[in-house]
Amino acid sequence: MNTKNSASKQVVTAFAPATVSNVAVGFDILGFPIEPQCEPLGDYVTIERDNTNLAICVQAIHGVVSDLPYGPLANTATVALLKMQSELKLNFGMHVTIKKGIAKGSGLGGSAASAVAAVVAANHLLERPLPKEALLAFALAGEVVASGTLHADNVGPSLLGGLQLIHSLEPIPKLITLPIPQGVKCVLVHPKLEVATKMAREVLAATVPLHTYVQQSALLASFIAACYRSDFPLLKSSLQDLIIAPQRAHLIPNFYAVQAKALEAGAMGCSISGAGPTIFSLVEDASGDGGDGGQAERVRLAMVEQFTMVGLATTSWIGEISTEGARVVDGESKR
Amino acid sequence: MNTKNSASKQVVTAFAPATVSNVAVGFDILGFPIEPQCEPLGDYVTIERDNTNLAICVQAIHGVVSDLPYGPLANTATVALLKMQSELKLNFGMHVTIKKGIAKGSGLGGSAASAVAAVVAANHLLERPLPKEALLAFALAGEVVASGTLHADNVGPSLLGGLQLIHSLEPIPKLITLPIPQGVKCVLVHPKLEVATKMAREVLAATVPLHTYVQQSALLASFIAACYRSDFPLLKSSLQDLIIAPQRAHLIPNFYAVQAKALEAGAMGCSISGAGPTIFSLVEDASGDGGDGGQAERVRLAMVEQFTMVGLATTSWIGEISTEGARVVDGESKR
Repeated sequence: MNTKNSASKQVVTAFAPATVSNVAVGFDILGFPIEPQCEPLGDYVTIERDNTNLAICVQAIHGVVSDLPYGPLANTATVALLKMQSELKLNFGMHVTIKKGIAKGSGLGGSAASAVAAVVAANHLLERPLPKEALLAFALAGEVVASGTLHADNVGPSLLGGLQLIHSLEPIPKLITLPIPQGVKCVLVHPKLEVATKMAREVLAATVPLHTYVQQSALLASFIAACYRSDFPLLKSSLQDLIIAPQRAHLIPNFYAVQAKALEAGAMGCSISGAGPTIFSLVEDASGDGGDGGQAERVRLAMVEQFTMVGLATTSWIGEISTEGARVVDGESKR
Repeated sequence: MNTKNSASKQVVTAFAPATVSNVAVGFDILGFPIEPQCEPLGDYVTIERDNTNLAICVQAIHGVVSDLPYGPLANTATVALLKMQSELKLNFGMHVTIKKGIAKGSGLGGSAASAVAAVVAANHLLERPLPKEALLAFALAGEVVASGTLHADNVGPSLLGGLQLIHSLEPIPKLITLPIPQGVKCVLVHPKLEVATKMAREVLAATVPLHTYVQQSALLASFIAACYRSDFPLLKSSLQDLIIAPQRAHLIPNFYAVQAKALEAGAMGCSISGAGPTIFSLVEDASGDGGDGGQAERVRLAMVEQFTMVGLATTSWIGEISTEGARVVDGESKR
């Protein structure tokens, strides 16, 4: 058994960042976490160890969302912890407090972030914490509860950081960290409406036309090559979603106008983050602050304006692709 | 007009190599030429310039194939030349002799090689030859005649050399040269039967299941990453065709046994070259000669044996992925 012997109360808080998945060209296989300049965007999970029994329960959910399930088999964080407890034969229970920084149904990997933060915090309670990669399967078990399908393109990057390619999930998840060209910024604009991931999956056709598959494959392969070559013109001509976004566009009012204006304002690419409705743009912007003068800020304003025109309030961020991923932010025994 | 002034007879011969297209993970978008150690594998086209009229005609077809169309609008080489003559406003005719080194319906890009060799030879007759990239569109026009579809994954690598990714075809073809990990050898085994490209396309379903599309995308993206990382284990776990090969396997007797034995003998991957029936394997083999002691030779023998068992004679080659592509091998004015 891999647990601390101390009977003393232990409390650990971990943070897991919001993530953009799909990334236009890689449905279910590409994702990255975003690190806004102002303040972190993600979920915090605090775990209090309970040596008196094995129960894992949610004590509180607060922050930008509070109406999430408290049942241990329905909450993504506790499902992940139950899987971890069972697999590692942990001999303690956990009281879980979730502080949501990611809005529900926003397309920013909220369910994944809670599951990831939970397992990272719990890992810190172990005598010998596991490497992050070993936590992936536990967090994935949590993610399945929320989305209904096994996909690691939020969990993977939120946990590990960086632009992650999901090579395979079975028998164990295998991810590849792709290089991120220097000077790429991400703009996120979240219109105030909720898109349920399960519903966004249900609108997808069961098949892809062969011709479209070939075209999208060329774009995906070119995107991967562009990352390795730091080739911005190639990134720009690759970042197109011919398959998924066209089927989900109707779920997001004015999507095509937002996209067109983002590209007009200089974005290399603009598409739906995860299942939406958040829209992301990737922008070549070497300016340090992402402030008024930057290309990213011009793209952000152009996107926000198109949502405003159809009466939708927005929250928006500018940031870099984070290479750090989830981390312990407060724990009794710092590592 | 971009033509030589001399009225003297000019004769140029060009060579274009055989190519492996699709490469398991990149249907219609990936290809490479092979350079066997013993002797070149490809087509030779000799063009004799005729300043007396504009006609483009096939004078002779010999080599491993001779029953190809002589009609200028039916032969891939002359269709390519007609396109070139028309676009560049060439004021001379051409007498074309084709020496086929690539068997018909073998899956080794024979129709592409003839078109490529033709335009490379004709280019050498110009006062100011064009860069190779500018010849792509002409050769493609020829390839369409043979295969019925516009795809550049044979023409591109045969012309330019190297592992080529077809980023896009319109408005002008855009190709990306991918890095080839050092020490990769290619084994080709051609069983003596003919598969017509058009027929091999007709067996393909019009759509791809979404789930399979996602899995194949992960393999393609991983393959591209593996090339840039020179990551042999990743190459091995990426080189799988879940979509096309399963639909064409029945056209090639014992395909699955050939594939299984190749992998057993140490191949990183084994799949159908182009539309088949040639099967290719990629092998990590740093041995200089590809001779008896090498891994590639063991894979070749294992593959040949499985065809022999079902009564099929074979021709086989071991070589490197050629980075050179098509070239003039004999011309009055050497460049």
